[in-house]
Amino acid sequence: MSTQKSFAKGSTAPGPVPEGTIRLYSMRFCPFAQRARLVLQAKGIKHDVVNINLKEKPDWFLEKNPLGLVPTLETPSGQVIYESPITCEYLDEVYPDNKLLPSDPFEKAQQKMMLECYSKVVPYFYKIPMGKRNGEDVSALEGELKEKLAKLNEHLKTKKSNYMAGDSITMIDYMMWPWFERMEGMQLKHFLDGTPELKKWTERMLEDPAVKETMHAPDTHIGFYTSYIAGKADYDYGL
Amino acid sequence: MSTQKSFAKGSTAPGPVPEGTIRLYSMRFCPFAQRARLVLQAKGIKHDVVNINLKEKPDWFLEKNPLGLVPTLETPSGQVIYESPITCEYLDEVYPDNKLLPSDPFEKAQQKMMLECYSKVVPYFYKIPMGKRNGEDVSALEGELKEKLAKLNEHLKTKKSNYMAGDSITMIDYMMWPWFERMEGMQLKHFLDGTPELKKWTERMLEDPAVKETMHAPDTHIGFYTSYIAGKADYDYGL
Repeated sequence: MSTQKSFAKGSTAPGPVPEGTIRLYSMRFCPFAQRARLVLQAKGIKHDVVNINLKEKPDWFLEKNPLGLVPTLETPSGQVIYESPITCEYLDEVYPDNKLLPSDPFEKAQQKMMLECYSKVVPYFYKIPMGKRNGEDVSALEGELKEKLAKLNEHLKTKKSNYMAGDSITMIDYMMWPWFERMEGMQLKHFLDGTPELKKWTERMLEDPAVKETMHAPDTHIGFYTSYIAGKADYDYGL
Repeated sequence: MSTQKSFAKGSTAPGPVPEGTIRLYSMRFCPFAQRARLVLQAKGIKHDVVNINLKEKPDWFLEKNPLGLVPTLETPSGQVIYESPITCEYLDEVYPDNKLLPSDPFEKAQQKMMLECYSKVVPYFYKIPMGKRNGEDVSALEGELKEKLAKLNEHLKTKKSNYMAGDSITMIDYMMWPWFERMEGMQLKHFLDGTPELKKWTERMLEDPAVKETMHAPDTHIGFYTSYIAGKADYDYGL
């Protein structure tokens, strides 16, 4: 995992991307950037990681990607790719070893439909802790999240498979993982009590080498999150 | 173009999808479904279209796609694919003639980044006419749309190309087109006065056979839109 401190406004830009490698602009606690980190690890792609201070973005980073988003990939020839599903699919196409997306067009479409569906689950992982902190009644949101997790549980049960798209880990597992990793730190882990198949999936995921390599302990997530909600995001927390 | 009336709740389901073809569940005025219609036409794919009454969806349609969305594709073996970018990419992968997406991973990623960016333009095509109708001040929204269209104009100018990704029409042009077709009916066409390159692009698009085949005249769009905002959407308007 990259233990390099984040680059902020006023910093000197890192050197060019070495030939034969690819660069990931990331933020250590960003779940979207973690998707790309997972794919880079799982495929064994030679890369470096440049962590970005997302509150005080360097001008040289905004020149490369005016949207200032992570994950952003940069190739040695200066090609720039962003948006997490686009970066992950790009990596899977360019680096043929250990393919994570199926080659069959329908199976690939199924993964993308699952991802689209999952993108409607992601907001709950933020809304519930935020609402609780603000003293709001989050019971309706909690009910909705439960229902959505129950559907994922049902999916695994019906498929009788260890992972979301079969018995081996594929792209969709990595795309979904980062928010599950944060459930304990966000005090959402009890939601998995009612979804045993999904819980087993998270346990299997925790054994995956790419997951192990890119993950933070719950306490570290809590530490960053605490600094974030206090308006003083510590992008270098734990380094 | 399909001139078949829409299927509503209580209707008898259409027969099975004939071998060697693919079926599109569509709605004649839906811009997202039009994306799939454009791709089917542009690639010369043998297909049939089943129009759906989106306010009173048939149960048999909801059984195929519980989300009840159009576009939805169905294959003879009963595979179901939805979400417009996913349907279009699926069609482009399964039917190799007249490829609309580039094979180069970076060029493909560029098209997807453009699409992602364009997805932030789409809401303006609804918000401005709706706001105006409600007597709201839409000048800020208008300013934002102008800015976004200016960026597209700049893109064409910088690329010095006839279409969004080069000198021939590709996927991204078809993905963007449906909302431009509706600008006249939505009384938004004057927005193109300040973006001459983009205006020329719309004129070129109007010459494209797939666009010609799938388009409605501005008056027809107005007729449907009028019925829609009155809460009595006439999905068969003009038939």
